[in-house]
Amino acid sequence: MLADFQDLDSFRHLLAAAPAPDAAARSAAAERNGQLTKPPGALGRLEEIAIWYAGWRADPRPRLTAPQVIVFAGNHGVVAQGISAFPADVTVQMVANFQAGGAAVNQLAGAAGARMDVIALELDRPTADFTQGPAMTEAELLQALTCGWQAVDPATDLLVVGEMGIGNTTAAAALSLALFGGTAADWTGRGTGLDDAGLANKTRVVAEAVALHAPQIGDGLDALARLGGREIAAMAGAIAAARQLRIPVLLDGFICCAGAACLEKTVPGALDHTIAGHSSAEPGHARLLAALDKAPLLQLGLRLGEGSGAALAIPLIKGALACHSDMATFAEAGVSEG
Amino acid sequence: MLADFQDLDSFRHLLAAAPAPDAAARSAAAERNGQLTKPPGALGRLEEIAIWYAGWRADPRPRLTAPQVIVFAGNHGVVAQGISAFPADVTVQMVANFQAGGAAVNQLAGAAGARMDVIALELDRPTADFTQGPAMTEAELLQALTCGWQAVDPATDLLVVGEMGIGNTTAAAALSLALFGGTAADWTGRGTGLDDAGLANKTRVVAEAVALHAPQIGDGLDALARLGGREIAAMAGAIAAARQLRIPVLLDGFICCAGAACLEKTVPGALDHTIAGHSSAEPGHARLLAALDKAPLLQLGLRLGEGSGAALAIPLIKGALACHSDMATFAEAGVSEG
Repeated sequence: MLADFQDLDSFRHLLAAAPAPDAAARSAAAERNGQLTKPPGALGRLEEIAIWYAGWRADPRPRLTAPQVIVFAGNHGVVAQGISAFPADVTVQMVANFQAGGAAVNQLAGAAGARMDVIALELDRPTADFTQGPAMTEAELLQALTCGWQAVDPATDLLVVGEMGIGNTTAAAALSLALFGGTAADWTGRGTGLDDAGLANKTRVVAEAVALHAPQIGDGLDALARLGGREIAAMAGAIAAARQLRIPVLLDGFICCAGAACLEKTVPGALDHTIAGHSSAEPGHARLLAALDKAPLLQLGLRLGEGSGAALAIPLIKGALACHSDMATFAEAGVSEG
Repeated sequence: MLADFQDLDSFRHLLAAAPAPDAAARSAAAERNGQLTKPPGALGRLEEIAIWYAGWRADPRPRLTAPQVIVFAGNHGVVAQGISAFPADVTVQMVANFQAGGAAVNQLAGAAGARMDVIALELDRPTADFTQGPAMTEAELLQALTCGWQAVDPATDLLVVGEMGIGNTTAAAALSLALFGGTAADWTGRGTGLDDAGLANKTRVVAEAVALHAPQIGDGLDALARLGGREIAAMAGAIAAARQLRIPVLLDGFICCAGAACLEKTVPGALDHTIAGHSSAEPGHARLLAALDKAPLLQLGLRLGEGSGAALAIPLIKGALACHSDMATFAEAGVSEG
């Protein structure tokens, strides 16, 4: 979809004027749900998901046919602070792996019948080291938001955004601390596998970066520019575009949710079209989901990113909609209602 | 698969002599898992599932291609005690709904690409009311076990067994109390929707039935005959057959797990080829899963039975195996190992 914002304020305006769920479709879906051949409430969260989805799609009997997974990749100047167990070269190597179909998310998107796109954002030009100054200029942030926005296929009916970027759990921890407070230790984890000394260093880096930038952070977009990264901003841009297109979104792990949180902390309610696909083993994620009031569909100890946890949850949405839209009603099946 | 047991003791013998996982395949799968392009452990429980599955299938690089869902239905004499919110006629009505493709499990099996079979066990001949005597004779139990055993397609690579039977949460509660102890209230829930008075009556029925039969219960099969039902025994027979065929099983809700528990309480380890697909909102289920030491894949508040929760979890196994068997290794992808 063409991005129709010229600056951050027009992006803010679009966020604030975003569509709401369709009340009539939602109400028709709730009515249908009550007529299906099952005891009331017996499909648990699947029932809520179907009604929620029907509202966003303005379709009382929707089915899932065209999910899209987009993986955005970016590099981070903050890796100069020694905050990752893997070298920054791995970002470009993993992009090649995504393009060749060899990563975990390729298999999970394939198993879920989802289209998959891979978008690398200027990997040879990392963001600035945010311990020294803002990670991105306003122009750089706008470019990344626009890239994510334009990557969403308007024909998609469920969006997953994921990421690859060595160093980006540090950015996610810094964003979370700036947006929700607490201590750096609350939000900082081992990422791809730091040892105790590495974790202590990373925690210090997060604390110092947030202390440096906090006075200039007014809303989530300010935080995103100063402490985010290109792939994190692209995820935020894609999630915002999905809202304009009435496309529900499954949120992935800590980094995806940190990007999403920048939208919520710019315009409250900006994530109402999203569900948390899973809760990651990266400890900041559960805390972030709680702060966003999002209950995860899966809790299987994944901590890979790439959109993998959300892609794994796509079949749950598909199953919820299949039940809602294709089950017989009591009247159709001649079953007694008890 | 042809049932090669003539009496309960030969069934017990088959259970005790059941196959173990293939150690070489399991070890080869664990080695492959360590070479895949992800940080160690980053796929969380999906990694354990793939290695576990590889051992049972004796295949270090397995894929899921032929899941089978079998729904067994039976009627229960104990409904005479007023323990269900729905009339017993609903069992045969729902069987027609399964056969016509209109129930929840039809949609979930279809979405997961699973074959689905529906087997009604003498619906016009309910089991005896177990508040008065044993639910089944040994011959009736054997017939139901055999029915389940023979329903498993040997070409299946993942089995889900589910049930329909008005009154069967009462049987499941009685079995659980007989097998694991505690109080009747620990195991008795509202089923399809009892009110407070109905729940109190059901709890009393469970307590009295177990008090009546407990002195004669030596192992899980004794409990199954006295307090079970035909569909519950058929599920147990199918789970036992799957073990012989090295077919991993996803366990469904409270009633399925009560049937499975009868195997475990006959031969410890009889459920090692099974994973809990989900944890139901029926309160006895979480307690039963804990007693069986099974961690559920999903916890989405379902309480429908039919195999619905386990069918919903099939794509998680498919995803785990797709990652395990089709991801690139570090060497193949040219990715640095950190």
